[in-house]
Amino acid sequence: MKNYIKADEWNIIEEGFDPHLNKISESIFSLGNGRMGQRANFEETYTGETLLGNYVAGVYYPDKTRVGWWKNGYPEYFAKVLNAANWVGIEVKLDDEILDLATAEVSDFKRLLNMHAGYLERTFTAKLKSGKTLKVKSTRFCSIADDEVGAIRYSITPLDFDGKLTLTPFIDGDVKNQDSNYDEKFWDKIADEISGTEAYIKLRTKKTAFEVCTGSNIELYKNAEKLDINPEAVRKEKFVGQTFSIEVKANEEITLVKIAANLSSENYPKESLLKETKSVIANASAKGFDTLLTEQTEAWASKWEESDIIIEGDVSAQQAIRFNIFQLFQTYTGKDDRLNIGPKGFTGEKYGGSTYWDTEAYCVPFYLATAPQEVSKNLLIYRHKQLGKAIENAAKLGFKDGAALYPMVTMNGEECHNEWEITFEEIHRNGAIAFAIFNYIRYTGDESYLSDFGLEVLIGIARFWKQRVNWSNDKQQYVMLGVTGPNEYENNINNNWYTNILATWCMKYATEAAGIVKTQQPEKYNSLLKSLNFDQKEFTDWADIIEKMYYPHDEKLGIFLQQDGYLDKEQTLVKDLPASERPINQKWSWDRILRSCFIKQADVLQGLYFFEEDYDLDTLKRNFDFYEPRTVHESSLSPCVHSILAAKLNDEARAYEFYLRTARLDLDDYNNDTEDGLHITSMAGTWMSVVEGFAGMRVRDGKLQFNPFLPGKWKSFSFTIGFRGTTLKINITESGISIKNNAAIDLEIGIRNQLYKLAGNTEIEVNNAALV
Amino acid sequence: MKNYIKADEWNIIEEGFDPHLNKISESIFSLGNGRMGQRANFEETYTGETLLGNYVAGVYYPDKTRVGWWKNGYPEYFAKVLNAANWVGIEVKLDDEILDLATAEVSDFKRLLNMHAGYLERTFTAKLKSGKTLKVKSTRFCSIADDEVGAIRYSITPLDFDGKLTLTPFIDGDVKNQDSNYDEKFWDKIADEISGTEAYIKLRTKKTAFEVCTGSNIELYKNAEKLDINPEAVRKEKFVGQTFSIEVKANEEITLVKIAANLSSENYPKESLLKETKSVIANASAKGFDTLLTEQTEAWASKWEESDIIIEGDVSAQQAIRFNIFQLFQTYTGKDDRLNIGPKGFTGEKYGGSTYWDTEAYCVPFYLATAPQEVSKNLLIYRHKQLGKAIENAAKLGFKDGAALYPMVTMNGEECHNEWEITFEEIHRNGAIAFAIFNYIRYTGDESYLSDFGLEVLIGIARFWKQRVNWSNDKQQYVMLGVTGPNEYENNINNNWYTNILATWCMKYATEAAGIVKTQQPEKYNSLLKSLNFDQKEFTDWADIIEKMYYPHDEKLGIFLQQDGYLDKEQTLVKDLPASERPINQKWSWDRILRSCFIKQADVLQGLYFFEEDYDLDTLKRNFDFYEPRTVHESSLSPCVHSILAAKLNDEARAYEFYLRTARLDLDDYNNDTEDGLHITSMAGTWMSVVEGFAGMRVRDGKLQFNPFLPGKWKSFSFTIGFRGTTLKINITESGISIKNNAAIDLEIGIRNQLYKLAGNTEIEVNNAALV
Repeated sequence: MKNYIKADEWNIIEEGFDPHLNKISESIFSLGNGRMGQRANFEETYTGETLLGNYVAGVYYPDKTRVGWWKNGYPEYFAKVLNAANWVGIEVKLDDEILDLATAEVSDFKRLLNMHAGYLERTFTAKLKSGKTLKVKSTRFCSIADDEVGAIRYSITPLDFDGKLTLTPFIDGDVKNQDSNYDEKFWDKIADEISGTEAYIKLRTKKTAFEVCTGSNIELYKNAEKLDINPEAVRKEKFVGQTFSIEVKANEEITLVKIAANLSSENYPKESLLKETKSVIANASAKGFDTLLTEQTEAWASKWEESDIIIEGDVSAQQAIRFNIFQLFQTYTGKDDRLNIGPKGFTGEKYGGSTYWDTEAYCVPFYLATAPQEVSKNLLIYRHKQLGKAIENAAKLGFKDGAALYPMVTMNGEECHNEWEITFEEIHRNGAIAFAIFNYIRYTGDESYLSDFGLEVLIGIARFWKQRVNWSNDKQQYVMLGVTGPNEYENNINNNWYTNILATWCMKYATEAAGIVKTQQPEKYNSLLKSLNFDQKEFTDWADIIEKMYYPHDEKLGIFLQQDGYLDKEQTLVKDLPASERPINQKWSWDRILRSCFIKQADVLQGLYFFEEDYDLDTLKRNFDFYEPRTVHESSLSPCVHSILAAKLNDEARAYEFYLRTARLDLDDYNNDTEDGLHITSMAGTWMSVVEGFAGMRVRDGKLQFNPFLPGKWKSFSFTIGFRGTTLKINITESGISIKNNAAIDLEIGIRNQLYKLAGNTEIEVNNAALV
Repeated sequence: MKNYIKADEWNIIEEGFDPHLNKISESIFSLGNGRMGQRANFEETYTGETLLGNYVAGVYYPDKTRVGWWKNGYPEYFAKVLNAANWVGIEVKLDDEILDLATAEVSDFKRLLNMHAGYLERTFTAKLKSGKTLKVKSTRFCSIADDEVGAIRYSITPLDFDGKLTLTPFIDGDVKNQDSNYDEKFWDKIADEISGTEAYIKLRTKKTAFEVCTGSNIELYKNAEKLDINPEAVRKEKFVGQTFSIEVKANEEITLVKIAANLSSENYPKESLLKETKSVIANASAKGFDTLLTEQTEAWASKWEESDIIIEGDVSAQQAIRFNIFQLFQTYTGKDDRLNIGPKGFTGEKYGGSTYWDTEAYCVPFYLATAPQEVSKNLLIYRHKQLGKAIENAAKLGFKDGAALYPMVTMNGEECHNEWEITFEEIHRNGAIAFAIFNYIRYTGDESYLSDFGLEVLIGIARFWKQRVNWSNDKQQYVMLGVTGPNEYENNINNNWYTNILATWCMKYATEAAGIVKTQQPEKYNSLLKSLNFDQKEFTDWADIIEKMYYPHDEKLGIFLQQDGYLDKEQTLVKDLPASERPINQKWSWDRILRSCFIKQADVLQGLYFFEEDYDLDTLKRNFDFYEPRTVHESSLSPCVHSILAAKLNDEARAYEFYLRTARLDLDDYNNDTEDGLHITSMAGTWMSVVEGFAGMRVRDGKLQFNPFLPGKWKSFSFTIGFRGTTLKINITESGISIKNNAAIDLEIGIRNQLYKLAGNTEIEVNNAALV
């Protein structure tokens, strides 16, 4: 755990330069706009430790699978997030010395991520080996107003010398993925062009043949005055740039502006990519850096309008929750239904495939409440588009007749992961995809989604579960053998309660959804079922399984059993584990982890969270009190569910304690792995802790409900959500809760156990005294 | 399945050259002498498909582990059998054409492995592109009389031309392992020397720094007359050789004799390796090819005296059983307690580590009966020497206080395998090592082994089991969670009956062994227990576990359960599996295999085989009738145990049927994988089928017992075994059994349920009519 980020409500601030923290900061200060993104690598040369990272959404490489021992069914390739051309580079030379913070003496170093305006600023003073001292300030951003554009303003001021300054801004495509399986470079150069202040390079990925054109245009200023430049072209292997020199005097500020663009063949015909990139560069250059930055500031301001959480009385918590919201929106903006949310977003290349069940289980709730409805809808459509691949994926594992198994990790719908216990057995992911459809409709009321997209997916998923269970003669019930639950510290177990309950829920919901579509769109219904070769007997089969499914439980303890045989384990508690043995996933061998009772993340409790309406509080409490003390929370996705459930159980202290475990996960480098990239999807979990946990927000029968409490340390907190045509601002203080309805739409809202009318454009305030 | 090997009682014969079969034949015709060995690669150039293989026992390379996803506890390195210098090479050039069977027109091709004399012979006629035709005959062997020596006699007769013949015999160390993880070459050259007809190369392995010196001396003959040669040295990267030309006339036979030696730093100081190799070469050259071959023939004849099995009435069965015995003795001769039996012996590089539990479970019974007592004793001592590593291995997995876990795959005692479900969980191997000690003493009566070596190993193993079980509060019994049994088509299961029963047996036997040592060698006992920090309470702990262990079983079916929950599986039978879906390990994805009821190899039945005295025939029959129909026998180690048990159940037809499945496994390339190498360890299983199955041989209370039957197709079979100072020849015919005692030692022998006296140097014959 580190603690070097300065607390501030709207900014992330690092002061002083510590090379050992550089890769962590590169992750934390990352920029992105949903279409492209990058780690906070320095513009100038840096020979110290760094992890170079530039990414273009949707562009991937199928890296040949590497395993020790091949098992049938493993995917041949792992679709990897690609490290793309680095467009931020600017080599800075003073006379014959290259500016490099690894060799210079650095002072007044400050890195600042302005989350309200969406830009990264860096200032420092560097004393070179020659003794020359200069001051640098760089400002850069990836525009969310025009998500193909990025811009840098890089200012250099010699403090104590006159001399020759040589600048070489460049675009370097000669990059590789650190996690490449066979140390291959993934890009080929197709074309380049350098002309005056402009430079372009068009690269093509091997195998997948995606093309990305990256271009830049530069301008130079001395103090406020624009200078004409005639740079010399620099062309290397997959590298384009320009170089030029000017004579500078002490205390003159020389500013290089670099406007860049990334366009991909996912959005343009390959043959016009270069032309289109030039046009984007021309438009952006015409606007200029300041206008682009103003647009950026305005666009971010409007995002914050819809999604901000304000915490009073705790600057560190305020900073953390905004950082999480900011990074989520940098990663996914919901404009493109082919994109999704990688666990590391645009901040690192680890976990190379883009989409996990994290999206459905954790991110969908966030985007439902904080972004226009299309955003979460596009996340669902992403999976609908990949239904065919999910059916192929299931077929590879021996399933048939349209059964769909969505992949554990994917870019394009194909499975990318290759541990049998995960790839083939952690199949509960399939249920989360169905649950997200349910959750979307519960929140938005948009039942038309079922007939347009949802039912087809639900049927594919239900078909999978039908084939995946088997009849146990011994139990005279249906069982599900050989699975891995959300608790990945158990592999190949039988009758994981969560997976079993999720499977029958999927069959129930698919049946219900079919009924809705049949009623609302009988023609569509008939033609869909026909195209799916659907036999009415399938409903009967599902009903039989729903009726006769086995769910492991223990009468005496009054709990659901995580799996068959769980109570045979030695029942020790996490609190009795010596600190020297934690985290167990770093200290224990895998077999020891597997046979211990320790739980990685919510498993039975994940089911009680999803299906809370089916269980009373006593049941929840018994299960929570049994499982949580056995949970090591070694997944960043674990604490949030526990926080929400603790809040529901009125255990406010623990709800807050669980929240704290992820709120500043990356800002404080809690797990010593932030240098690889940020834990983007778990950030949505932190948001859930606040909104579903502390504020107790739910949607039931089409109505919003709140069951709030104020964490002891806070003075108040408030948040904005969008809901069925209006936005609401909810404010929770010591004295009670107020809700402001910002549109002319009348609502009924539940607070604790009381229903309140909230007319359009009004506000209600309910004092704690009035709450039951 | 192939069927191209000609049936013959003592020879393995291939007639006609089919390049597609070449890699299979290279395996089948492999040579070895326990110290070194080689695939049947051609001496002359061959540009067709070939798998080059030369191996030196005990010399390995720790190849850095390659996995997709790292788990704690995985070994860093995999100790690999090394492909060593190729010493058989002879380039043959006629005028300017290189002899290469891939480009020549080949006729009269014949490859013959003479098992009685232990040599490989190859003859062919080749018509070169130029039209020149020549005849070649090569004879070669790896001497078991002097196991550092190999020899080749290579004769060339031009049939229709006169011309210049250029011969280049060489030693080539520039080889690599096909299964290298990172495509590395494992050898460095240290020294070489070429002088006259001699050539030497000394190579050192990277990392492990083993050194091997390979040398050769050549002689040349025209017809029977020896010629003087003055060859020119040829030296390349890790390559030494000589080249010379002579004018030949049609029908003159030119013969090159190449005497070679391989000496390793395992047996000599590194600094004297070259000198010692020269001395071995000098001695062998002085003897000459014919004398060496005579010694080889005599040495093999004496091996056959002790171990032959004669089958009358079935040439194909006769050939197969001798092939199996021959290959086992080519692989392991028992002279060196640092060596062991790799699953592929010296016939291929697959399954790179050398030692599996196959040795203890399958090979020890073979060597006990067919070789001097030291041979099997050395196999046990091999494990004793590695006890320290086994304790380290257990410690890596969190065990302590001297608990020993022997590796799944090893060369030097360190674990080499890296699938968690095998490496960490297939721990029953540990029990097989204890069982082999018991089995050795049961057969030989040599209880002194316990105080000298065995008890220490047994205590380490018992300590492991003690820590590996845990108390189940739920069951109020001890359980063992998270294991993989011999049936590797189940992973991470709970309470594998076989492993549970084996674990408590180990604790019982360790306790019993301690008692024996205490009585017989009280001082040794005390000092050993002191050196092991042994606490008498450990006996009490073991006794408690022995008393309260849980063994899964099903009352209704009257069977032991392979594991908890086995009866929840869909109960289908192998006979109902479509042929198109077999073998399931090639056709089904891993998860499907895991959740099916199909069994790879004997699991519960392996326990009933080991501990048969504890169970009545009805119990055996119920379990056999339940499990066998669910067994796919997709391990070559599976059928033999089933054959033995079927014989015990008097199901002679099935006993024979199971025997047939492995008897010609490699000769007929039954599983399409013989090209990778032979299944050496399963060959011992075939021997067991005949001796323990058909002849029903057991040792009980220090006495041999037989319960024989004659497979319907056979006229008779007989075999020789060594037993406590004598050798016995057992002959089983239609009419009954005869046993000849070849030494002046009186025995009591059980036949069926009757005890017979068999005085020294006498023979008894018991007619079937007399048998109960």
